[in-house]
Amino acid sequence: MRIEPTMNDMTQTPEMLIAAMCARARAAGAILAQASDEQKVRALMLAAQALREATPAICAANARDMENAAANGLSPAMLDRLRLDEARIESTAAGVEQVARLTNPLGEIIEETVRPNGMTLQRVRVPLGTIGIIYESRPNVTADAAALCLRAGNAAILRGGSEAVESNRAIHAAMAQGIGSAGLPVDAVQLVPTTDRAAVGALLRAAGMIDLIVPRGGKSLVARVQEEARVPVLAHLDGINHSYVHSSADPDMARALVVNAKMRRTGICGATETVLIDTGFPDAASIVKALIEAGCAVRGDAAVCALDPRVSPASDEDWDTEYLDAIVSIAMVDGLDDALAHIAAHASHHTDAIIAEDAPAAERFLNAVDSAIVMWNASTQFADGGEFGLGAEIGISTGRLHARGPVALEGLTTYKWVVRGTGQTRP
Amino acid sequence: MRIEPTMNDMTQTPEMLIAAMCARARAAGAILAQASDEQKVRALMLAAQALREATPAICAANARDMENAAANGLSPAMLDRLRLDEARIESTAAGVEQVARLTNPLGEIIEETVRPNGMTLQRVRVPLGTIGIIYESRPNVTADAAALCLRAGNAAILRGGSEAVESNRAIHAAMAQGIGSAGLPVDAVQLVPTTDRAAVGALLRAAGMIDLIVPRGGKSLVARVQEEARVPVLAHLDGINHSYVHSSADPDMARALVVNAKMRRTGICGATETVLIDTGFPDAASIVKALIEAGCAVRGDAAVCALDPRVSPASDEDWDTEYLDAIVSIAMVDGLDDALAHIAAHASHHTDAIIAEDAPAAERFLNAVDSAIVMWNASTQFADGGEFGLGAEIGISTGRLHARGPVALEGLTTYKWVVRGTGQTRP
Repeated sequence: MRIEPTMNDMTQTPEMLIAAMCARARAAGAILAQASDEQKVRALMLAAQALREATPAICAANARDMENAAANGLSPAMLDRLRLDEARIESTAAGVEQVARLTNPLGEIIEETVRPNGMTLQRVRVPLGTIGIIYESRPNVTADAAALCLRAGNAAILRGGSEAVESNRAIHAAMAQGIGSAGLPVDAVQLVPTTDRAAVGALLRAAGMIDLIVPRGGKSLVARVQEEARVPVLAHLDGINHSYVHSSADPDMARALVVNAKMRRTGICGATETVLIDTGFPDAASIVKALIEAGCAVRGDAAVCALDPRVSPASDEDWDTEYLDAIVSIAMVDGLDDALAHIAAHASHHTDAIIAEDAPAAERFLNAVDSAIVMWNASTQFADGGEFGLGAEIGISTGRLHARGPVALEGLTTYKWVVRGTGQTRP
Repeated sequence: MRIEPTMNDMTQTPEMLIAAMCARARAAGAILAQASDEQKVRALMLAAQALREATPAICAANARDMENAAANGLSPAMLDRLRLDEARIESTAAGVEQVARLTNPLGEIIEETVRPNGMTLQRVRVPLGTIGIIYESRPNVTADAAALCLRAGNAAILRGGSEAVESNRAIHAAMAQGIGSAGLPVDAVQLVPTTDRAAVGALLRAAGMIDLIVPRGGKSLVARVQEEARVPVLAHLDGINHSYVHSSADPDMARALVVNAKMRRTGICGATETVLIDTGFPDAASIVKALIEAGCAVRGDAAVCALDPRVSPASDEDWDTEYLDAIVSIAMVDGLDDALAHIAAHASHHTDAIIAEDAPAAERFLNAVDSAIVMWNASTQFADGGEFGLGAEIGISTGRLHARGPVALEGLTTYKWVVRGTGQTRP
């Protein structure tokens, strides 16, 4: 039995710690599931207020994290993600209030039937259960994820990055204060008290005790979670997204969409990484030119290299690379079937778009491409829960079960069958 | 590298075999997903016809299985499950036709919105992908499961029990004939060609290649699948179901419901295994008596033992036991809260019922019990996809993600987001 010196109780293994937290989460979840929506909304409004009031304490905790992180040589990008200030805390509090304003997902009657024997059947939306969130760097996830889980009636177990431990504790304390003040169990949102990596392993193996794990962070975190988890995981590893310029595309629209899809923000998962241009599209060179002029490095196949001397040759790997940077790979394709074959071979099933005036071609694309999000004449950068009108999202899933694409409150619920009879026995 | 002598190709490992089958399934699934519903319906009608025409060949194959099974000392119950005759083959063919008559689940627009920028968003129901079915004994599953998967646009990989290998091959050949005659890819339904148990392990570990595994069989099979699987599993291990007789229950209705819930068929997963009788219910003895007179062995707590000398004392284990037999455990509980606590501690989250005239008490029970199916004044024996009006079911799930309770065609689908714009770029 390993002794973990970072634990509260020195005799606890990570497995014992997680099992105890899961048991408390289950008990809190049972209370949450029966609590009124008004009470949950009130808890979130009070939590937002507590966050604002705790701003000095959160900033002080964050300063300690920043100091350690700088001493540990974290990259400037990581430091920026970690950093909190008054504006960021205000934005986090406002985010919690936004979740409080979303439509209550619980209690919805998804389906209702009356059987020939008079029994009525309803499928009713209920909380999913206990949700584990494993995240890195950005301490605001402590509040965002907790708020979404709570509003959907779920207990949350949060495991933030070791670099943000002080900030997460301060934010968690404010959330717990709001939840407790509203008369809900503070165990509804628990923060794993140790930075021991073994606790992550214990969370990932807590089958039957945790209903869903959502990793929020870089690729190595998501890959580890997907590899090790013995509980269901909601995530996407890659966003290798395509924008396909069909021969019928309007040249001006195609140029504007491709530049926006690639360059608006290159670091988000909805950014286009590969552009496919139909050999029948008359204006390929202008698309390449527009991307280069927008500051994008272009890697192309032989045909694309021939269009502009500034294009460098793409390697085989480029077609399977999520750059998350101002780099794009471009291939010429010979018609819709060729585009579909390229996408089937290389897409990560996140978001893929066609730009076309030919409606039947576009509908064929929308039907045939097997991705969480398919688009016609729109920028792949719209792949986002907020842009889809879902309010805050817990993440985007490229998995096929339960929830696909942007996942918001509804994805954090399940249903049960409610049968009401008048004494019916089965013949 | 292990050499499997039972493989078609002597150099193939089980992993290579399963990977090759999964690749063929993906290719077939892509075609199925684009095929019209009419074509799938036609494939199922032709498959039913092929099953009927193959009756002599299927019976002959089954006779060889039965001979081997008898030589291997299979139990009479197992032999009965394995046995096929003309009537059972006709019933299997009729089941395939029934699936052909269900409503097409694909293409349904689950949700549709127009964003302020004019983009339209639809969530559209699409096939789930590749589904693995691992089953035992009953060869009719080869046809039932294949039909459900196919109608929902999914490719199926079937792995039947070694005792039914010849029967399964004969049934599979008929299904393949129907599918091929309708112009659909025969790889849409593949049967694992080896009885090597390592092939099951390879299926369970085929993450990314198989989207869902459905085990159909006894507890040891389901337990192994749930334990080993690295792909999502849809199943239930136990049906430890409760019928709670509230103090307000109508005595005649309570007696009739409890006897039906326990004794109509004791071997199905919806059978009641534990009866909870409220101390405020005036007629507990008559319920105990009715069960005993219906041929049920009653194990009770001290209070129940005191009601009837024929009751034997229940052990702690009894409250966690799925008898699947004419045995019941009965406890007296002190009010609704006590009943809810017993159910929370012992239920397998399958089906639990309250018998009550007091509507607020019943509604509290329906709300508070966290099971896939909750019932008021109805027999737990109704826990069945057919009885719920879903048509054929692939199984009943006590998991919380994706699909819960009886799972039919809709549970074998997922959705994608379809976005249609007119050139919108994200600001």
